[in-house]
Parts: sequence; C-alpha cells; structure tokens
Amino acid sequence: MESRNILSTASQNALPSGVRRMFELAKKYPDAINLTLGEPGFTTPQHIIDAGIKGLKEKKTKYTPNAGIKELRNAIAYKLEKENGIKCNPDKNLIVTAGATQALMLSMITLVNPGDEVIIQGPNWPDYRGQIDMVNAKTVYAKVDESNNFKMTADIIEPLISDKTKLIIINSPSNPTGGVLDYEDLLKIAELVKKYKIFVISDEPYEMLVYDGFHQHSLAAFEGLEDYVLTINSFSKTFAMTGFRVGYICANEKITENLVKLHENMIASVPEPMQLAAVEAIYNGEKDVQEMVKYYDRNRHLIVDGLNKINGFSCLCPNGAFYVFPNITGFGMNSRKAAEYILEKTHVVTSPGDAFGPDGEGYIRICYASKYDDIQEALARMEKAFGTKSR
Amino acid sequence: MESRNILSTASQNALPSGVRRMFELAKKYPDAINLTLGEPGFTTPQHIIDAGIKGLKEKKTKYTPNAGIKELRNAIAYKLEKENGIKCNPDKNLIVTAGATQALMLSMITLVNPGDEVIIQGPNWPDYRGQIDMVNAKTVYAKVDESNNFKMTADIIEPLISDKTKLIIINSPSNPTGGVLDYEDLLKIAELVKKYKIFVISDEPYEMLVYDGFHQHSLAAFEGLEDYVLTINSFSKTFAMTGFRVGYICANEKITENLVKLHENMIASVPEPMQLAAVEAIYNGEKDVQEMVKYYDRNRHLIVDGLNKINGFSCLCPNGAFYVFPNITGFGMNSRKAAEYILEKTHVVTSPGDAFGPDGEGYIRICYASKYDDIQEALARMEKAFGTKSR
Repeated sequence: MESRNILSTASQNALPSGVRRMFELAKKYPDAINLTLGEPGFTTPQHIIDAGIKGLKEKKTKYTPNAGIKELRNAIAYKLEKENGIKCNPDKNLIVTAGATQALMLSMITLVNPGDEVIIQGPNWPDYRGQIDMVNAKTVYAKVDESNNFKMTADIIEPLISDKTKLIIINSPSNPTGGVLDYEDLLKIAELVKKYKIFVISDEPYEMLVYDGFHQHSLAAFEGLEDYVLTINSFSKTFAMTGFRVGYICANEKITENLVKLHENMIASVPEPMQLAAVEAIYNGEKDVQEMVKYYDRNRHLIVDGLNKINGFSCLCPNGAFYVFPNITGFGMNSRKAAEYILEKTHVVTSPGDAFGPDGEGYIRICYASKYDDIQEALARMEKAFGTKSR
Repeated sequence: MESRNILSTASQNALPSGVRRMFELAKKYPDAINLTLGEPGFTTPQHIIDAGIKGLKEKKTKYTPNAGIKELRNAIAYKLEKENGIKCNPDKNLIVTAGATQALMLSMITLVNPGDEVIIQGPNWPDYRGQIDMVNAKTVYAKVDESNNFKMTADIIEPLISDKTKLIIINSPSNPTGGVLDYEDLLKIAELVKKYKIFVISDEPYEMLVYDGFHQHSLAAFEGLEDYVLTINSFSKTFAMTGFRVGYICANEKITENLVKLHENMIASVPEPMQLAAVEAIYNGEKDVQEMVKYYDRNRHLIVDGLNKINGFSCLCPNGAFYVFPNITGFGMNSRKAAEYILEKTHVVTSPGDAFGPDGEGYIRICYASKYDDIQEALARMEKAFGTKSR
C-alpha cells in the first residue's frame, strides 16, 4: 500500500538540468555574461507584437479549433510550399502547437509505445531525452563528433535500427552542435526511411538560421516519404518569438487526425492572439529574419575565431543555428569541470557538454545569439585568463 | 518490419468525440442553437484583456520560468489562501500551465505509470479518459447517477481501490453533471485518502460557478493531505478566459519539482502576456465573476424548469458548473439517438450522454452558459416539438 505514493518512472528518470545548474552557480557573479540559453538576443519585431495586440483588441479570447485557426494553417501551408517544397493541405496535414516542444511531445505520444526505441543524435537537445522518458520509451543515441562535422548521417543511423525502433528524430541545423545535414545527407536518410518504413521527425526550428549561402532542405520534400515524415517547426528562433509559444506539425492525414485528437486532451488549443502574431511573421517577417541572421553570422565569426586563438579550445565553424560546440579537452578536465572553471576564472556562463547527453562529454555549448559586445567581452576575459595559443 | 509504421496504442484508443459528431450533424441547420460547448457565453472582461495587451506592449515576449512568472504564482498563492484555505509557497508548490487541461496531462505523466489504474467519475469529462489512455493507464469508473445527486462519494470510490490504483480524480462542481461534493462528502474522501495513502487530483475549474449559497470546499484544505492532493484550477470558466490557456497546479514540493522538470519538456512555458492577464483576473475580477454567476443562475432556473415541463425530460437542478444533465429515457431511445432526434426536430444541439463515457447513457448534457434568449428559444422549440407534460 505504501508504494502507491511514489511518482512515475518518468518523473524518477527526469535528469537534473546541467544548464540550470550553471545558472545557479553563476548567481554569485554580478558581472556574469550568460551564453547558455538558446534564446535570440533580439526583441520580437514590433509588427509581429502588434498583430498579437490587434487580436486581443478584437477580443479573440475564445478556444480556437484544436488544429489551430484556419488563417494560420493557410499561412503555414503557403510557407511550407514556398520555402520547403512541401505541399500540404491546411485542413488535413497541419496542426498548430505550443511551440516545437509541445509538437514533439504530442508526436511522441501519437507514435510511440512504452518500450519502443527512438533514435536521436548524441549530443542532443536534452528535452528529446526527457520526452522519450515521458512516454516510457528507450533512447538510442546516434553519436556524432567533430570528425564528421557533427552530422547524424544515414550510415551512423542504420546500424542502430532494430525491430523495436519506432522513430528517428533528425534536427538540422542541430542544437547543440550547429551541425547541418546537406542535400546528399538527407537523400541517403530518405532512402533509409523508405527501406525500413520508419517514422521520422524532422525538427527544423533553426532552418532559417544558416550561413555561408547554405540552404537547409526539408526531409519531407523528398519523394515517397509522405507516410513517414513529420515536419516540426516553430516561430521561436526564426522570429525571436520564444515567448509566444507557437509551433506546428505537418504530417500525413491519418497521423494529423490523431495528433489533433490527442492535442485536445493535452492542451486543447493555442491562444488566438499568439496564432495571429505567427500569421504576421510568416507573411511579413522575412526582412527581420535576414537582419537577425546577418547579426548572428557576425557573432559566429567573432566567437569561432576568438575561441580558436585561446588555449584549451578547438572550435569548428558551424553552418547553422546559433551555437558553437567547442572541444575543451585541451583544458585537461571533463566538460562539467571545464564549464565551472571557465565560470570561476572569467564569469562567463557556458553549458557543459554532458548536459546534452553522454556524447557531449569533451565539449561545451556556447550560444552566440546574444549581443556582439557581450561576446567580445567574454572572449577578452577568456583570452586574459587562459592565454593565447602560440603560432 | 511493416508493423513499425503504426501509431501508438494511445492513438488507436482515442475515441471519436461524441460532441464533435453533433457539431458536424448540426451544420445542415442554419438556425441551429448550439448548447454543447463548455465555454462561457461572455466575452473576457475588458480590464483582463487590457492586462494582456499591456504585457505585449511592454514586449514581454521571451520564455518565462518553467513554473510561470513570480507575479502570477504570488497571486495564485494569495487566492488559494483567501478563497480555498490552502496555504502554499509560490516558489515551491505552484506551477502555471496551459489551462487545466495541460495541468491534468502533466500531472498524469508525473504520477502515473503504464498499467496503473486511475479512478474517475462516470459519467466523466471525456479528456480524463483520453489522458489516462495517453499514459497507457487503465480507467476505472466510479458510477454516479441521479439517485445520489451525481455525487462521487467515498463509499462509491472505496470498493474500486485496488493495489494498482495510483490516482483518483475528483471534479466538483462536475462536468458533465453539475453535481457538487459538500463539506461532509469531502471529509469522507479526505479520510479515504489518508487511509490508503493515495494521490488525488482535485480538478476545480468550476469552483466559483456555484448557486443557492453553496460554497465549494477544496480537498487540499483538509488536514494531513499535503502529500496526496494536487489542486488543479484554471482561469477559463471563472473569468471567461478559455482562449488565454492559463491554469495551474498546487502540490507538495517534491511533486511540484517534478512537474516543473517535465513541464519544460512538454511545453516549456506559458506566454507571459496571458499570465499577466491572469494576475489581473485574480486581483480585480471578483465583480465580473459575481455578475456572470448571477446570469448563469438565471439561465439555470430557466432550463431546469423548462425541461421538466417538456415530455421526455426529467432534470435535476444542479448546484454547480453550467451544465444540466437531464434524464432522457422518457424518449424511449438511447442518448445518441435522442440527441439526434432533438436536433432533427428542433435544431437544438445537445451532447449525447454516452459522449461522457458508458455511464452517461440515458442522459444528455446541455450547457446553459449561452445567452438567456437562446435558451428560451431552444425550450420553446422543444416544447412545441415534444409537447408538455400533463399535470
């Protein structure tokens, strides 16, 4: 009888956040520069905020359809065709979610049974692992590293597929590594999917944050994958709209029908003013994105060039997202110790690699979405503390 | 290999909505009066909308803490102490959620393992059943009916408790019946909880919508239940804020800690402008609620008196929520047929009782939160179609 009063296995498995731990440790330094959180340094563009205000002024404060308002589904369908080459019917293939986070959780519940295996990249965004635990499934890590530019390619995935594999999640550009999958990489994954007839979530929140002329292709645009690929995206990173909590899933009709049914039980619907802001972002936010990407790109060069001059760091130049994932084995300590050491010596807050799963060991994650000046100052402090490499 | 490409058991178990079916059938009647949806007929009070607008104007568009903004947690703690006699620490016992719906789903994932049993009232709000399916647990119905004023009392619950019971959900005032549990009823449930040391969710979204001087007590206010009871509430019904999607959970520190961790993986956080609107509702919404309750009360008398005069109906006068759950066995057909027959003959849309689980058979649910005139017209049509009872 006593044993009734214990929390679920999902609760017990929930890992303490290695990022939050750094936040706590940083509290004692008033001059800390925080480069941990994956949130744009920009404020949401004013015209997008105004669209939300307009929705509230017009008293759009009732439940919306579970799948989201028609206006937003139409806008998303337009965007997916124009930018991703994905054709979809806004009434049959789309559902609006509370960010990509809820989109992922909803998809897991819709697809995955307890005991199933889900393949994700290692190092990984910690929430993937948390969500897999929440549906009582098993995480299988597809390990990537610098030698392959942090690419989760088909040849890494294939040996991991078992009879229990229910789902593969790809995430390009990737959090935490910034790695990207190019057209050829995706083509090979597409072939794998058709060979094994397996569900794949393509989680694409960073798709627009790419550099050096790179274009991020969507897996769902490849032929013959309609029944296997769920495309998940959000407005958070692209348009600096993290707090609006709007995302979406594009999937085949049968999957979407089930997503909508389960979404009703999970959150019912997303606030309409937030959905209207997302409509505005799609139709009129392109220029804002271009400006933000240009800013991030400048930050990217600053951080990569800067880190590679400093003792202890070795940093690839990633083609996407707003993270670098430098190798810190030069510090002669594990990632947790290294992040603490950097914090202590420079008051610069970074995320230890092991916060992104076991395959993150040996690295730290630095988000370069913050202000250029802050990054410059962080680099100056680290240069002073650790010295520069001799040529 | 082929079997990989099938959806989860949770998806396969998802029941088609008996309410949505009526919506579809109603589409062919342009003069339909819809008394199905559980949504206040009122618009959100202007000062609450304004608080949301102010939040957007002040560019509150970033992630908030997973547990919600401090300002709202303080307001909720103040409300719980003042109105419910529940003392809680806003930093340790509260989490802000996307409505009570997500609060419930999050609680289930935090507490319940696959295979566990969850006791809910039958007839029940269909989402409870959907959520239990989504965590692969088993629904156990505590059947209530008119003979007991639709009360899910301790003596109905106790025989259903088994070694697998992990959670009991109580919901007073109840959707769909309008039944309420009074102080004595709750006291007996409190004793049961202590005896079996079992988790209970007290789902209280209708607590303020009570009539005839009835006061709804909260289970968590009873002594010695800190470690067992999760109080869930929302702003949706009380303040006509369904579309804001703000709710909360109050629980002990250990449970709350886990709720917050899993919430990060599930939706991350709730939009800050919506949280600020909820703060305004707590501190300045009391008068609005009083007016709305007065209006609902007038509707309640209208519908109960009206239905009891019409052939085929027998309707208790519920003390809470904004639903009546009349017995329709006088029509000589099951609830689904009866709802269809009523629709066909009068173009009044109601929800068949079996949409609320097997124990709803023999009844229909009518929501009286809509306009007084609409209810009057609906009654006139039914009186004309079915005739009045002879004295």
